[in-house]
Order: sequence, then C-alpha cells, then structure tokens
Amino acid sequence: MPVNTRSDAQRSRVLLVGAVGSLLTAGRVGFSVPELAAEAGVGVATAYRHFPTPQDAMQAFHRRAIEQLLEAFGAIGDGLAPAERFRRVCRTWVEQATQWGAAIRYIRSSQGFVERLAAGDESIVALHDTLAGVLDALARDGRSGEPDIGYAVLLWITIFDERVVYDLSEHRRWSVDEVTDRLTRAVAGALGLTV
Amino acid sequence: MPVNTRSDAQRSRVLLVGAVGSLLTAGRVGFSVPELAAEAGVGVATAYRHFPTPQDAMQAFHRRAIEQLLEAFGAIGDGLAPAERFRRVCRTWVEQATQWGAAIRYIRSSQGFVERLAAGDESIVALHDTLAGVLDALARDGRSGEPDIGYAVLLWITIFDERVVYDLSEHRRWSVDEVTDRLTRAVAGALGLTV
Repeated sequence: MPVNTRSDAQRSRVLLVGAVGSLLTAGRVGFSVPELAAEAGVGVATAYRHFPTPQDAMQAFHRRAIEQLLEAFGAIGDGLAPAERFRRVCRTWVEQATQWGAAIRYIRSSQGFVERLAAGDESIVALHDTLAGVLDALARDGRSGEPDIGYAVLLWITIFDERVVYDLSEHRRWSVDEVTDRLTRAVAGALGLTV
Repeated sequence: MPVNTRSDAQRSRVLLVGAVGSLLTAGRVGFSVPELAAEAGVGVATAYRHFPTPQDAMQAFHRRAIEQLLEAFGAIGDGLAPAERFRRVCRTWVEQATQWGAAIRYIRSSQGFVERLAAGDESIVALHDTLAGVLDALARDGRSGEPDIGYAVLLWITIFDERVVYDLSEHRRWSVDEVTDRLTRAVAGALGLTV
C-alpha cells in the first residue's frame, strides 16, 4: 500500500494545531516545538517541518479559530431578518469564543484590526466582510446609526474580544445566554443599532 | 561625597523602564536584558538586578503606563459636573494612549480585567476605582443606564483599549479629538449613558 503522504501531512498538521489549543488552555504558554510534538503525538522532525517556531503554530491556531468562527457564521443560514441575523451572529460568536477563548486569549496580534485589514490578512478580511454584510443589511433596514462600516466592525470586534467573553463566563460565571444578551446590547448601543 | 545608592538605583530603574518604551515603539519586541541595558545606558548587571527577564521589565513599563494614566486622571480636578468629568476622563485617556499605545500594544495580560481585579492587581484596582467613581457620579446624576458598575468599567476599558486608539490614530489617521469623540459616544451608547 503506498504511503499517503499528503493526507499524513494534513493529519499531523491538524493534530499539531489542536495540541496548541490543549497546551494554551492548560496555561502552558511558553511551550517548545518538541513539547508541542509530544502533546500532538507526532514526531519532532514532523512538527518542525510544519511549524519552525511555537509562534508559527500559535498563528495557525489563531487562524483556525477564526475560520471555525466563520464556518459557524456560515451555518446561520440566509433568509433571516437583518436584526435576527445580527443577534444570531452575536450568539454564535459567544458560543465559539467560550470554546477557544481560554486558549486564544494568550495569542493576540499587536497589530490593530484596521492595520491587519489594510495589510490584507486573509482571515481578518473574511471576518470583516461577514460582519460588514450583517451591518449593511441592518443599515438598509433603517436600523443602523453608524454609517462608517469599517469603524462599526472594529467596535463590534473589540467588544466581542475573546478575553472579554472568557472573563465574563469564567470569572463572572455568566451563562452563554447572559454574555450574549449583555454584549449584544452593548454593541447595539455603541453603534446606535435598533435591534 | 557618599554614593547615593538608593537614588542611583531609582534612576537606573526609570531609565530601564523608559528604554522598554523606546524598544517597543521601534518594534524591537524580542529584546534581551543586555539590549535593554544598552538602550537605557546602564550596566548589564544593574539591568539584571532590576529585571531578571525582559517580561519583568515589560510588566514594569505596563504598570508605569497605568500609573501615568491615573496621575493624568487625578489632574482633571474635582468639582466638575459628572457628564463633563466623564468626557474629560475619556479625552485624557485618548491623549495618554496616543503617547504609549504604540509600545503598550505589544504587552497585554492574557488575564481578563475581572480576573485581575479579583486577584487584587494594584494598578487595575486603582483604575477600576477611578472609573467606577466617574460612573457612580453619573448614576447619581440620573445619567447611567448600566447598574452593574463592574461590568460597565470592563466595557469602558475594552472600548478604550490602547490598540484601538493606536489603530484609529495611526491607521485611520484620526486626530485625538476625533478618536475621543467617537469612542466617548461608543462607550456612552454601550452603557446607555446620557452625557
């Protein structure tokens, strides 16, 4: 049987990215590539081939989290009223952030959202476009007070920061419902949305 | 003349903390303690005595920035109407963040605000108390919609994140006035404040 190199490589990569999540959630922030390999159950050489530094692996984990968020947004489905769509996106975001917030709060770009957007950072552009679409629909429905969509998206992302979600659910012990309700109202108030 | 050891040590410390700001503003994020010493113009042994690791030095820089922010808040003076005090605090914050935002965006605690508050982190407690005082005065003036002051302070701090201020001033080229105006309105909206 021939060795299926490509899917082996993909499998190792998925295991390594998953291991980043496990290590960070356990608070093992300063992990090395060999430690990552051990956690993932893959060889050290393989780990180095995918991720020359722990930073590369953490970046891949961050990107994966945003892709997962976008997939979850995609599953919300079309055909909803703009205000309902906004609320569903907010809820999905909190649900997702509750899953990987504990890990991802250790990883944050020092670059701002506007900066990464201008640089064409792929996952940031996709996230921006999705959220901008939701806000555009609200504006066309006469429910939006903030005409500067780029700024509106920045505020939304800032308020739904994974560290905020983590802080409120872990240290305030708020449920997903409570966090969703409060942060949704905060964003609506900040943007002058009628939802 | 006797060597004034204590003030020498203080002077070195001030130089080292200042050098953290210069290095980070220049994007030299992964600096070593000897590099920090060179930037500050102090001996390497002295630098290690103050800060065994670069992380210790960055933490001191972060603490110093919050202290500077609190001093600036303190200079606003009493006797202002609650709404005017709120606006002045917002403006002072943007002015301050414009100064050290470029450096401080590289340093962020992975712990949330609520978590650090509960842990009794001194500068966080002081920042919380100052902002809570401003919000309390607004509430007594019948201008506050958010009765949960701890949550209100968290939202305020989240929206005035130094990376947001940096992003808007550097990458949107907004003036201090513009950033102040927009973020003040965002916080007021998020908290349901009438200011």
